[in-house]
Amino acid sequence: MTDPAAAKPTSESRSVRKRRAILDAATEVFLTEGFAGASMDAIATAAGVSKPTVYNHFADKQQLFEQIVNDLVAVITQPFYEQIVNLSDDGDLAKRLRELATLLLKGVMQPTNLRLRRLVIGEASRFPDLGRAYEQHGPARAIAAWTTAFKRLANEGLLRLHDPALAAEHFQSLVLTTPLNHAMFTGDDRPPGAPQLKRYTDSAVDVFLAAYRNT
Amino acid sequence: MTDPAAAKPTSESRSVRKRRAILDAATEVFLTEGFAGASMDAIATAAGVSKPTVYNHFADKQQLFEQIVNDLVAVITQPFYEQIVNLSDDGDLAKRLRELATLLLKGVMQPTNLRLRRLVIGEASRFPDLGRAYEQHGPARAIAAWTTAFKRLANEGLLRLHDPALAAEHFQSLVLTTPLNHAMFTGDDRPPGAPQLKRYTDSAVDVFLAAYRNT
Repeated sequence: MTDPAAAKPTSESRSVRKRRAILDAATEVFLTEGFAGASMDAIATAAGVSKPTVYNHFADKQQLFEQIVNDLVAVITQPFYEQIVNLSDDGDLAKRLRELATLLLKGVMQPTNLRLRRLVIGEASRFPDLGRAYEQHGPARAIAAWTTAFKRLANEGLLRLHDPALAAEHFQSLVLTTPLNHAMFTGDDRPPGAPQLKRYTDSAVDVFLAAYRNT
Repeated sequence: MTDPAAAKPTSESRSVRKRRAILDAATEVFLTEGFAGASMDAIATAAGVSKPTVYNHFADKQQLFEQIVNDLVAVITQPFYEQIVNLSDDGDLAKRLRELATLLLKGVMQPTNLRLRRLVIGEASRFPDLGRAYEQHGPARAIAAWTTAFKRLANEGLLRLHDPALAAEHFQSLVLTTPLNHAMFTGDDRPPGAPQLKRYTDSAVDVFLAAYRNT
């Protein structure tokens, strides 16, 4: 017979595994069926759990969806979010910006993110909360990180700007817009090749620094 | 009894009216039901014509959809597409760019365009031809117009650039991305107010000219 004190971690890790299975299954069901078309029944079946188990973990479809968006953004930005916030001039600001822009663009162009982004945009008229959740957890968080960094670089006299948030929007727009919009319209989820990445990130950094570097 | 020679124009204008009615009805049906959900039956009913009449005008749903995109883009860009292509320095290039950027942003932020853009993005994985049609008739045409203009301004020594198409992408990204993405995610189709328009267009032109003006 199992010691009740020792059983708890096992039970907890089973719960964690089930939660993970539900989230993975729900991602596929949402991306295949759309938000309206995805039923909690289908999600439970795909996850190999009962419907009450799904509801034990998530109050409703909306909460489940927001958790997926949150997790995905964590995977995409966690590795370098801190690097953006702590961006400092080590003697070659342009190089550092190019490195971070490349990480950002590669992260954003991951197939699951592209598919999820299309989904929330396609559903935004009917389910604006999905799109707001995506915007808030995704693009807005990256903008906030750049804003923090640019504000500090301006205080240090390296950048010249009066609206750090607007400068952050400009930088992100310059880096991401062309490849991201093209993927949105064509449904092509293949990541851009190295020469394309370089074309977008190098030129974005050049334009940004021409406008905002303190000379 | 009607003179047969005189009857033709009447018949033609009736055909034009029917075509117009089909396009208007189809726009609403597509935007409400999605591309997959919209049936030629529903479109015929909404237009008050028979299904064979719909097929007399449009070979299939795809062709009908492309015509809608084409018409919409014509409405949005026709008024100033020529102005972009013929952009010239009348002594205040920044002012001229701000005027054109404002027209472009206002055009793009029209509710029907926002709804159609969400639709094609949402369907791009399943129906990539819709998104390609939208991209080709819409953003790519505007980029082509800016490219023509920037190439000429560079030849005249006013801009300094080695890749006019990339400069055109940068300009369009700076002007449109923030308000357009926000509308995409939130489903909010209200046009931005004058102060917001001014914030985006003024700053976009400042950044663009800082990077590309020949000083």
